Amino acid sequence: MAHLLTGSERAAALLGLPHWSECPPPQDAISRQLSFRTFPDAFAFMTKVALIAERMEHHPDWRNVYTRVEITLSTHDFNGLTQRDIRLAHAIDQAATDALS
Amino acid sequence: MAHLLTGSERAAALLGLPHWSECPPPQDAISRQLSFRTFPDAFAFMTKVALIAERMEHHPDWRNVYTRVEITLSTHDFNGLTQRDIRLAHAIDQAATDALS
Repeated sequence: MAHLLTGSERAAALLGLPHWSECPPPQDAISRQLSFRTFPDAFAFMTKVALIAERMEHHPDWRNVYTRVEITLSTHDFNGLTQRDIRLAHAIDQAATDALS
Repeated sequence: MAHLLTGSERAAALLGLPHWSECPPPQDAISRQLSFRTFPDAFAFMTKVALIAERMEHHPDWRNVYTRVEITLSTHDFNGLTQRDIRLAHAIDQAATDALS
């Protein structure tokens, strides 16, 4: 059962997500910015993340401007950060590593 | 050759784009919000628009949150609205009509 991350859970989770930063309050969310070589590269990455998100039944709030992608994660049902966001962030990091390598 | 739309060009163009609204100044841009039944429906629409944008060599500034897609168009090279945005807006409207019908 998901729950809002406690302070220590959050600290531990963020240690493992160095590419992500906490959004300014009152937003309880994390975000990551990525930059790709081309728009097709950026959208190919987004397509991969879309499939991951659908499979995890947890979806990002994201914005794309040409080669840049900004992703924000939080759990709307809990109005803040849960392990579902942390799991999705790790999956996105893996997709980014594959895309950017 | 693209140029910033004049007042009368803009008025005429917007008459043909009833789903689009002008962004508040100082942004010189137009935006449209769309809502789909499911995330896969929303992302399928985005994929179609991505291919259109790439082919037109003109790309949107867009945000997706679950079933909602918000698209903003302007021409960065001209720091405002040109016929390239109007053409892309019409192509997006056609894709939306196909997706939502």
